[in-house]
Amino acid sequence: MNYVKVPMDIEKGSFEIIGKEMGPHNFNDEELQIIKRVIHTTADFEYKDLVKINNNAIEVGKNLLKKGVTIYTDTNMALSGINKRALKKLNCNVKCFVDLDDVHKIAKERGITRSMAGVEKAVEDKVEIFVFGNAPTALFRLMELMDENKANPGLIVGVPVGFVGAEESKRKLEKLDIPHITIRGRKGGSTVAASIINALMYMVVER
Amino acid sequence: MNYVKVPMDIEKGSFEIIGKEMGPHNFNDEELQIIKRVIHTTADFEYKDLVKINNNAIEVGKNLLKKGVTIYTDTNMALSGINKRALKKLNCNVKCFVDLDDVHKIAKERGITRSMAGVEKAVEDKVEIFVFGNAPTALFRLMELMDENKANPGLIVGVPVGFVGAEESKRKLEKLDIPHITIRGRKGGSTVAASIINALMYMVVER
Repeated sequence: MNYVKVPMDIEKGSFEIIGKEMGPHNFNDEELQIIKRVIHTTADFEYKDLVKINNNAIEVGKNLLKKGVTIYTDTNMALSGINKRALKKLNCNVKCFVDLDDVHKIAKERGITRSMAGVEKAVEDKVEIFVFGNAPTALFRLMELMDENKANPGLIVGVPVGFVGAEESKRKLEKLDIPHITIRGRKGGSTVAASIINALMYMVVER
Repeated sequence: MNYVKVPMDIEKGSFEIIGKEMGPHNFNDEELQIIKRVIHTTADFEYKDLVKINNNAIEVGKNLLKKGVTIYTDTNMALSGINKRALKKLNCNVKCFVDLDDVHKIAKERGITRSMAGVEKAVEDKVEIFVFGNAPTALFRLMELMDENKANPGLIVGVPVGFVGAEESKRKLEKLDIPHITIRGRKGGSTVAASIINALMYMVVER
């Protein structure tokens, strides 16, 4: 069969098609890299109007990544989607605590989600970048801890997908002063979350 | 803050909303479980018209899962999204070979993608269920091996997302006699792929 077999050619071709089909826009180059990578991941052009990059999130994100930080993800799936080679080059690492035994235990004892208990542990560990693709409860819990001055993250990529709580959690995030990238409405997800972090990493490191 | 903190309540509420908003349809109960789970994963109702379940794929898939089989995924991300507790109860397991050193080596030597080399290894290992969320090259390669009578999978969940090759690979899949579940057009992805396998597992095992 005749099909393109070179990964970088597939990606390059995809980005060209996305550029052609997405139509006019006012994004700068770096914003465009994020939007295009989200569309590349979903084949959903609606994201062009849904991705919101607020409070200097790109500049702050790039600087954090260059510094070599820990990224916390709400799911192992988002963690899996983050490019490990780029992470390594940047001296960054990525963690997800939802499968830890003590996180299970705390969640059960207190009747909260594992996602919430995982975020609490990440806050204790002074994680600087939080990435949420699935769990509105994780994003809500982080914002509660910020309200109580117990958490002070550098950047939040808050794009939980879903029908219960997701949209509300992202609306609340958009009102905050903190650098963040989010998706309006119900859409989002772990592939979207990972693609945003990857786009930021590819701005500061060669793959 | 006031938000739903019980995972099963979030999922139940989500499925109710999806049922209400998706409008009239002709799906049977089991098809509906797959469609709803895909929409739950993406918040994208377009999938209602895009998911195609062909050649008795649900019945065949359920029987394979009950037998305890190996599932091969094209990405670690799709692998991550498959419910491990349900897998274990079913005596099934899931593998992805794209990060193996010998798969890297073969891909490099032959100028093919790691996804293709991974599928070749999975075929040698007589994997019965193939799940593709990302790599059209993996799906194409499997279909080539089937053409050559070198592969005979039981079920293919073929939902690669993307702009180069993805749609073509899925169109070819739809023409085959083999039990398969696919997505028309460009959409799909590893979350979609995992959600379809999870939906099948939840039909035959309690979570």
